Amino acid sequence: MKSILILGAGRSATTLIDYLIAHSKVFDWHVRVADIDLELAKRKIRDSKSATAIALNINNERQRQDLIAQSDVVVSMLPPHMHLIIAQDCLRFGCHLLTASYLSKEMEELHQMAKSRNLLFLNEMGLDPGIDHMSAMAIKARILEMGGQISSFQSYTGGLIDRASDSNPWHYKISWNPRNVVLAGRDTASFREEGKVKFLSYHQLFEQFTVIEILGGEKFEMYPNRDSLKYLDTYGLQDAETLIRGTLRHMGFCKGWSVLVKLGLTDPYLTIKPGTFGTYAELLSAFLPKTEENMSEHTRICLGINDPVVCNQLEWLFDNTPLPPQEATAADLLQMLLVEKWNLHPDDLDLVVMHHEFEYSVGPASFRLRSTLRQKGRSSIDTAMTKLVGLPLAIATKLLLNNVLTVRGVQIPVLPAIFQPVLDELELEGVKFEEEITPC
Amino acid sequence: MKSILILGAGRSATTLIDYLIAHSKVFDWHVRVADIDLELAKRKIRDSKSATAIALNINNERQRQDLIAQSDVVVSMLPPHMHLIIAQDCLRFGCHLLTASYLSKEMEELHQMAKSRNLLFLNEMGLDPGIDHMSAMAIKARILEMGGQISSFQSYTGGLIDRASDSNPWHYKISWNPRNVVLAGRDTASFREEGKVKFLSYHQLFEQFTVIEILGGEKFEMYPNRDSLKYLDTYGLQDAETLIRGTLRHMGFCKGWSVLVKLGLTDPYLTIKPGTFGTYAELLSAFLPKTEENMSEHTRICLGINDPVVCNQLEWLFDNTPLPPQEATAADLLQMLLVEKWNLHPDDLDLVVMHHEFEYSVGPASFRLRSTLRQKGRSSIDTAMTKLVGLPLAIATKLLLNNVLTVRGVQIPVLPAIFQPVLDELELEGVKFEEEITPC
Repeated sequence: MKSILILGAGRSATTLIDYLIAHSKVFDWHVRVADIDLELAKRKIRDSKSATAIALNINNERQRQDLIAQSDVVVSMLPPHMHLIIAQDCLRFGCHLLTASYLSKEMEELHQMAKSRNLLFLNEMGLDPGIDHMSAMAIKARILEMGGQISSFQSYTGGLIDRASDSNPWHYKISWNPRNVVLAGRDTASFREEGKVKFLSYHQLFEQFTVIEILGGEKFEMYPNRDSLKYLDTYGLQDAETLIRGTLRHMGFCKGWSVLVKLGLTDPYLTIKPGTFGTYAELLSAFLPKTEENMSEHTRICLGINDPVVCNQLEWLFDNTPLPPQEATAADLLQMLLVEKWNLHPDDLDLVVMHHEFEYSVGPASFRLRSTLRQKGRSSIDTAMTKLVGLPLAIATKLLLNNVLTVRGVQIPVLPAIFQPVLDELELEGVKFEEEITPC
Repeated sequence: MKSILILGAGRSATTLIDYLIAHSKVFDWHVRVADIDLELAKRKIRDSKSATAIALNINNERQRQDLIAQSDVVVSMLPPHMHLIIAQDCLRFGCHLLTASYLSKEMEELHQMAKSRNLLFLNEMGLDPGIDHMSAMAIKARILEMGGQISSFQSYTGGLIDRASDSNPWHYKISWNPRNVVLAGRDTASFREEGKVKFLSYHQLFEQFTVIEILGGEKFEMYPNRDSLKYLDTYGLQDAETLIRGTLRHMGFCKGWSVLVKLGLTDPYLTIKPGTFGTYAELLSAFLPKTEENMSEHTRICLGINDPVVCNQLEWLFDNTPLPPQEATAADLLQMLLVEKWNLHPDDLDLVVMHHEFEYSVGPASFRLRSTLRQKGRSSIDTAMTKLVGLPLAIATKLLLNNVLTVRGVQIPVLPAIFQPVLDELELEGVKFEEEITPC
C-alpha cells in the first residue's frame, strides 16, 4: 500500500484531496490529510475509509518527520517559505514532493541530491504556475515538430468571476489568496517586446493595461507579470522577439485599481494607528489631495478622478464600513475591506481564463496560433480555481505512484515526459483548450 | 586628560574633527580618529599633536572595545545600523555616545540603563535631524513663554547647490549620501494638515510638490518627509492643526524626478543583467512606453513627457554614458550615473536652506513667524552640509566634557537644557537664523 501525505487542507486543497481519495481504492493508497485545524482536515476527507485526518503543527519537527517517514509522496499546500524544510525531510526519509509554488533557488539547489536518491521534487504544478507551462510547452513542441520558428509568445491567466455572478463595479471577486490580490504587481514588470527588453513600473502597470481578445471574442484587460524575461530560458524561447506573461482582469478593473495604487492604498509599509479614522470613506479621503477644489485638473486626470467609472468604484468600495480597531498597514486595511466586499457569495461561480498566443513561421509562411482555456466553477466551494490548482497536483501524484512519471530530481513541468501524460489526464477531467491557427 | 573617540573619518566628519582638534589644547583633550582607511584618518587629523589616527575594523570586537574603554565620549559617524553595538560597548565601559542619526527603537530602549550609569547617548545631533529640532524648539519655547498657542508648524530643509554653482537642468548636485538621494521619499508621507491626517504616496510625492518662499523671497519646491505625524508628540504639538516636515529642492527639480520615479528608474529591487543595455540612453528607453508614436496623450501628460523642461532633463541625464559592466539594480545604476552627473566640481559651493513657519495666537491676535537659515559652503570640501552636520556634534561634545550638558540617558535635542547652549555656540560659529513675525 502506497501512502500519500497532503500538508494543508485549506480551500485550494479540496479538489486534490477529493481526487486522490476517489482513486485510493483502485490503486490501494492511503491518504493522510494533515492540517493545524483537525476539524478542517476531517471535513475534507468526509467519511472515507482510505483516508485519515491528522492535526499537525508543522513546526513540531518530530511529528512532521514521523509523518513524512511513513509516506511515499508528500503534496505540500503550505505557504511557499515552508517547502524547503519539507524538502529536507523528504530527502532524509526518501519521499517524493509536489507543490504548486514557484521553484525557489534553495529548492533548485537540491536537484542533484534528490536525483541521487531517486526522488522527484515537482514544483509549479498548479494552474499558474502549472497548467500555463504545460499547455504552452505542448504547443511549442508541436510547432517545432512542424519545423516552425517561434517569433512571439504571449501567455495570460486570470482568476476571475463569471459574468453571471459579477455584481460590483470592479467586476472582480476573490477566488484565491487575497494578500496576493492586494500586493499584485508591486515589482517592476520586465518582458521582451519586438526584440527589446522593456520595464513597466508599479506606477504604470495598471494604467498601461492592454486589451486582449480570447477565442470566442471576449475581451479582457491584461497587465504584465513581474518577470517574463526568465521564461526566455525556462521555455527555451531565447530567439523569440516577444515574450510576455501577464494577468487578466475583466474590462474596467485596471484603471480603478491603478488609482488605488497611485494613492498609496496598497502600501504594505504605511502603518495606520487605530482610531485615526472611523470609516473607510474617511481613510480614502486622507489619501486624496487636500480638497476637491484645489485639486488641479492635471492631478484629476492623472489620478483618474475625473473618470465617473472610477469615482463609482471608489464610492462603492470606500463606504461607511467601520475600520477594524487594530493597528494595521494600508495594505492590511484594504485587504480586510476587499475580503468582505469582493467575497464570493454562496451562489457565485468563479471563472478561470488562460490564453496563449504564438506567432511563428514555417518556411515563408507566418502563422498565429491562439489557444484558450475558459473554465467556470461549479459552486462557490467547488471553484474553477481550486480545480485547476488541485488537479495537476493530484494527477501528477497518481502518475508518479503508478510509475508513469519517471523523471527525477527538482523539476517544473516543462519536460514532455511530465506535461504530456498530465495534459492527457487533464483533458479527461474536462480541462481542454480551444485552439485556432490563422495565417498572418 | 579627557579622551574623545571619533568613529568614521568620511566627508561629513571633517568639521567635527577640525573643531575638536582646535579645542583640544585649551581643554586638554586627546582626539582619536578611527576609520577602516588609516590614510583617510591621517589626512583628517593633519599633523595635530593632540590627535591620533587609528585603523579600525569596526567588526573587530576586541580592538573596538579597547578603544571605547579608553574613551570618555564616542562620536559615531558610522552607518546607523552600527550605532547599537557601539552603544552596548559604551554602556559596558562607561562612555558617552553622540550620533547624527535618527534615534532607533533599540537605542531608545537603553534609556534607563544609560541614565543609571550617568551616561548621555545623544542622537539626531546633526543638521536634519539636529539643528531642525533645536531651532524649532527654541522658537516654540519663546512662543509659549509669550502665552501663545501654536496652530500650525511647518519645517523644511534642503541640502542644495548654490545658484552660482548650478550648472545642470536639474539644478541639483549631491552634497550628502547619494543612496538617500536616489531612494528619497519611497515611503508614503504622512502629516497633519488643517486638522486632518493626510497621506501622500511615493507615486504622488514629487508630482504634488508645494512652492515655499523663504525669508528674502527665494522660492523652493517642497515635498513632505516620511513621517511628520510622530513629531506631534516629539515636539509636544499635539494641538497643532497642521504639522508638516519636508525637503526643499530648487525650482524645476520635482517634476523631472517624479518622472524617474513613475518610470521605475529608482527601483531598488529590479535587477538588470549586465550586457542588456549599452548606454544610459538605452536604459531609459526600456522604461518608456513602446514607441513615442503609440504613447497616448494621457500617458504623455501623466508621465510629464509632454513637458520640454522634463525632456531636457531626461536627455541631459540619460546620454551615451556606458552602463557599468556589473549586475545592478535600477536604483544602483541611477545612483552611479548621478554620482557622476551631479558631482560637486572643485569650485562648486553647496547651499543648505532650513525654513520654519509657525502660526500662533496670543489672545485674540494671530501671528505668523518665519525663520530661515541660509548657509553657503566655503569650498567643495568645506561644505555647508559638512559644517552643519559636524558642528552640533562637536559643540555638544565640548559642552558635555565641560559639564555644561548634564542631561543623561538616551536623548534627542528637544530639551532646552540641550538645545539652548548648543544654539548659542552655533551662533558664535555663524550659524544664525533670520526671523520675521507678521500678524495674520
